[in-house]
Amino acid sequence: MRYLITFSYDGSKYNGYQKQPTGSTIQGKLEDVLELISGTKVGVVASGRTDALVHALNQKAHFDLDMDISCEKLIKAFNGLLPKDIYVKDCVVVNSSFHARYSVKSKEYMYVINTGEYNPIMKDYVFQYNRRLDLGVMREALKYFCGVHDFRSFTAGSDVRDNYEREIFKADIEVYGDIVIISFLGTGFMRYMVRNMVGTLIDISEGKFLPSDLSIMFGACDRKSAGRCAPACGLYLKDVLYI
Amino acid sequence: MRYLITFSYDGSKYNGYQKQPTGSTIQGKLEDVLELISGTKVGVVASGRTDALVHALNQKAHFDLDMDISCEKLIKAFNGLLPKDIYVKDCVVVNSSFHARYSVKSKEYMYVINTGEYNPIMKDYVFQYNRRLDLGVMREALKYFCGVHDFRSFTAGSDVRDNYEREIFKADIEVYGDIVIISFLGTGFMRYMVRNMVGTLIDISEGKFLPSDLSIMFGACDRKSAGRCAPACGLYLKDVLYI
Repeated sequence: MRYLITFSYDGSKYNGYQKQPTGSTIQGKLEDVLELISGTKVGVVASGRTDALVHALNQKAHFDLDMDISCEKLIKAFNGLLPKDIYVKDCVVVNSSFHARYSVKSKEYMYVINTGEYNPIMKDYVFQYNRRLDLGVMREALKYFCGVHDFRSFTAGSDVRDNYEREIFKADIEVYGDIVIISFLGTGFMRYMVRNMVGTLIDISEGKFLPSDLSIMFGACDRKSAGRCAPACGLYLKDVLYI
Repeated sequence: MRYLITFSYDGSKYNGYQKQPTGSTIQGKLEDVLELISGTKVGVVASGRTDALVHALNQKAHFDLDMDISCEKLIKAFNGLLPKDIYVKDCVVVNSSFHARYSVKSKEYMYVINTGEYNPIMKDYVFQYNRRLDLGVMREALKYFCGVHDFRSFTAGSDVRDNYEREIFKADIEVYGDIVIISFLGTGFMRYMVRNMVGTLIDISEGKFLPSDLSIMFGACDRKSAGRCAPACGLYLKDVLYI
C-alpha cells in the first residue's frame, strides 16, 4: 500500500531533508521510524529536498508498506517515535501511480525576514536583516518574477539540468510588524532559487539593482548576473500541491 | 561606574538565568564576557532570575566596572562575544544607588500558547496545548488575578518567604490566529507564579474550576488549592520597569 504523509519540521538541527552518509536528516528520521514499525528498510520519497537549516510547514512524501496498518496508527507511531522537531500532520492512502515528486503540480515557499532589532529568540527561524526594507520597490520587483521564465540566473551553479524554465503564479509580500514574509507559488523551485530571488530583492531594496534589471538577469542565464543568496534559516516550504 | 543593560535571550538551551555549579546559564555567559573585557571577575545582578527554558525579551541587569568604556563599546563587545541566543539591546550608565533587583517597580510577563495543531517549529517557544481554549471563561477568571492578593497558592513550595502579597495591575489575553498570549503586569512575580496562574486558567477553561474558585484559592494560601503549572517554554519575561 502506498501512503502519502504531510509533515512539518524545524530544519535547524538537521543536515537537510535528504539522507546523507553522515549527519542527521529528516528523511533518515522518517525511514528509521518506518523500519521500526515494519521491520524492513523502507524508502521515503519526498516532494523534493530542502537544504540544511530550511524548515517545512507542509512537506509531502510517499512510501510503500507491505503491512496492513491504518493511517491513524501510522500518524501515532510517527509522532510517538520521531524527535519533537518533526511532526506528521496527515496520512492518506494513495494510488500506486501517485509519486510525491513527479506528481507535484505546484509548490509554495515563504521567506521570513526580521527588519527590526536582532531577536535571539528567532535566531534559527528568520533572516536577521535588522534594517528597514524598501517594500515599495520590492513589490514592484516582485512582479517581474511572475510568469514563465528561465530561472538559471537564480539557480545554484551546482544544480545542473537541461531545463531551467519554471512558472511563478503568485508572489507576495506580507508585513506583520517588523516581520516581512515573501512568498512564491510556482510549478517548481530549483536549488537556492527562492533564496537567490529573495537576496536579489534585498539588493534591489538597497539600490544595487533596479526592478527592471530583473529582465536582464533572466536573459543572462548566468548566476553571477543576479543578486546575493539569502540565508537558509529564513526559508520555509509552505505547501506542496498535487492538483 | 555602574551600567544597566537591557537584554533578550532564548532560554531553551540554558539552565536558567542564574549561575549554577554546573550547566550553562545566561548570567554565566554575561559574566564571562565582562571578565574578558575587564580582566577581572565582575558580578552581574539581574532584575530577577528566570527558570530553565524561560525566555526574556527585555531582561535588565546591572554591574560595576572600574574601567572607562562607553556604552556603545560595551554593547558591541557583548554582542560580538556572547552566543547568538543572548543579545544586549541597550546599555546606560546609572547612579550607584540604582539596583537592578531592588529598584524594580513592576514587571511584565507573557505566556504563549499554541491552541492549533502541534507545530515543531515552535517546539521551544510556546506551550503546545493543541486544543481550543474557552477564552470567555478565561477572560472572566483573569479579572480575579488583578489587584492586591496573597499569591501563596500560586507560588512554588520551594519559594519560602515572609510576604506573598503582590499586586497585578493588568492582565490580558490576546489572540493571533491559533496563538493565545496571556500577559500580566504587576509589582513582582514569585517562582512559578505566572506558570501556576496560567495553568489554573487552563484548568478553568477545561471546567475543572470556576472563575469564582480563584477567591477560594487566594484565601487557602496553599499551593495544592490552585491548578496545574504550565510548562516553562511558553513563558517570556517581557519587560522590567523602574519608574
